[in-house]
Amino acid sequence: MTFPFDRARMSGEAARLACRSGAITGCTAGIADGYVQGNLAILPADLADEFLLFAQRNPKPCPIIGVSAKGERRIPELGLDLDIATDIPGYRVWRDGVVVEERASVADLWRDDLVAFVIGCSYSFEAAMAEDGLPLRHVEMGVRVPMYRTSIPCAPAGRFAGPMVVSMRPLTPAQAIRAVQITTRFPSVHGAPVHLGRPDLIGIRDIQAPDYGDPVEIRDDEIPVFWACGVTPQSVIAAVRPAFAITHAPGCMLITDRRNSEFAVL
Amino acid sequence: MTFPFDRARMSGEAARLACRSGAITGCTAGIADGYVQGNLAILPADLADEFLLFAQRNPKPCPIIGVSAKGERRIPELGLDLDIATDIPGYRVWRDGVVVEERASVADLWRDDLVAFVIGCSYSFEAAMAEDGLPLRHVEMGVRVPMYRTSIPCAPAGRFAGPMVVSMRPLTPAQAIRAVQITTRFPSVHGAPVHLGRPDLIGIRDIQAPDYGDPVEIRDDEIPVFWACGVTPQSVIAAVRPAFAITHAPGCMLITDRRNSEFAVL
Repeated sequence: MTFPFDRARMSGEAARLACRSGAITGCTAGIADGYVQGNLAILPADLADEFLLFAQRNPKPCPIIGVSAKGERRIPELGLDLDIATDIPGYRVWRDGVVVEERASVADLWRDDLVAFVIGCSYSFEAAMAEDGLPLRHVEMGVRVPMYRTSIPCAPAGRFAGPMVVSMRPLTPAQAIRAVQITTRFPSVHGAPVHLGRPDLIGIRDIQAPDYGDPVEIRDDEIPVFWACGVTPQSVIAAVRPAFAITHAPGCMLITDRRNSEFAVL
Repeated sequence: MTFPFDRARMSGEAARLACRSGAITGCTAGIADGYVQGNLAILPADLADEFLLFAQRNPKPCPIIGVSAKGERRIPELGLDLDIATDIPGYRVWRDGVVVEERASVADLWRDDLVAFVIGCSYSFEAAMAEDGLPLRHVEMGVRVPMYRTSIPCAPAGRFAGPMVVSMRPLTPAQAIRAVQITTRFPSVHGAPVHLGRPDLIGIRDIQAPDYGDPVEIRDDEIPVFWACGVTPQSVIAAVRPAFAITHAPGCMLITDRRNSEFAVL
């Protein structure tokens, strides 16, 4: 494949190979339209079982769409040729709960005891919202979606515990109702909102001061609508301070062969 | 059938026959659980075509579930034996836009040019909400649901035009999201809410002063959730001041043979 190519119209497989070869670097937003992208968390086996249970108990912030076998870099259900150690354009390496390095491959760090978790991401339901004509303010403004640590506790599992992180999109009340209908169809990529209209009730004091991402404008006729966010697992993993872990770098997601429409339940 | 009988466990047909015979009088709430109840509007044929178009253009406040042929008192799709002139426990007779009489039968007022419209009612979606454990404050308080004239215009059709009337149920934000999911399944009985959280945006100045029904408590952690209401057609019919019309008396609905679950689309 030679430059320039149409990133939006690539298949999931072609995009993933381009990431692997270095032809695509950085943020994967807008690449391979229609294909599911995922968050990555790689943990040693001694933590992986507990994390899997944590995700099972908290499917809204941690919707797992693929898990590797212990020591395996393949996750065939997300792409036959997929190599989880090379196919993401940016990785973060964590030691003792701190990011020590960002890099384009973790092949040389791979260990026989690692388990990779791929977690659904909001790109899938945002695509469905945009298709229906609903606004995505952070996309219009060209910034990151605002995210907040809430007072909603996740259900703990073993060493994993902590508050749910949510992302926020401002909508008019009628659009919010439509957004509930649309995102309900995608339970494996965060699904319906968890809250709307009253940030104070979930421990958010200043809606213009998100804990992650960037603030966005909320217009006079709009209310904030909150979805469980894939940053939640990263946040609870960091709190456990594992000796070793790998995640994707922000915005650098795994592009899969699965289509967003496959994840719609209705 | 002899008294006392279990009103909640009657079939739709048995309840309708009891209404016809006078064994049941007054409000039909709580009778024949699981069976669809409907609002009634009977109009002369010269208005009926325009009203049908109005309903087609405003399906959320005017979800029609049955229409009689001109001059016919039968609506077989709602009950094989159904007689629309006798089977409702209370009718209102309107002349020149004003209620002139309430009575238990309109058989002797029937005319060859009348058309009967049966319009879905919120009892069906309220049953689904209650089954899911969602609170219905007006039921808890034993009062009528609060209803409001809004600034949301209905789409006009011929002589019929006017604002949408909505009913309001207070819910926590998480319950409101669940209520959107549940009531979305019932598009032919008002369906999903039309608004939530911000009464000011739809022209409601004082939520404690409803235009119809009774005020209900809204708790600190709740938001008002608004559904299109079957009072809308009565309100627009009254505004047209037809020379002659018949409706049900408030709370005295038509009990049909259809089951609420038949109206669920998913």
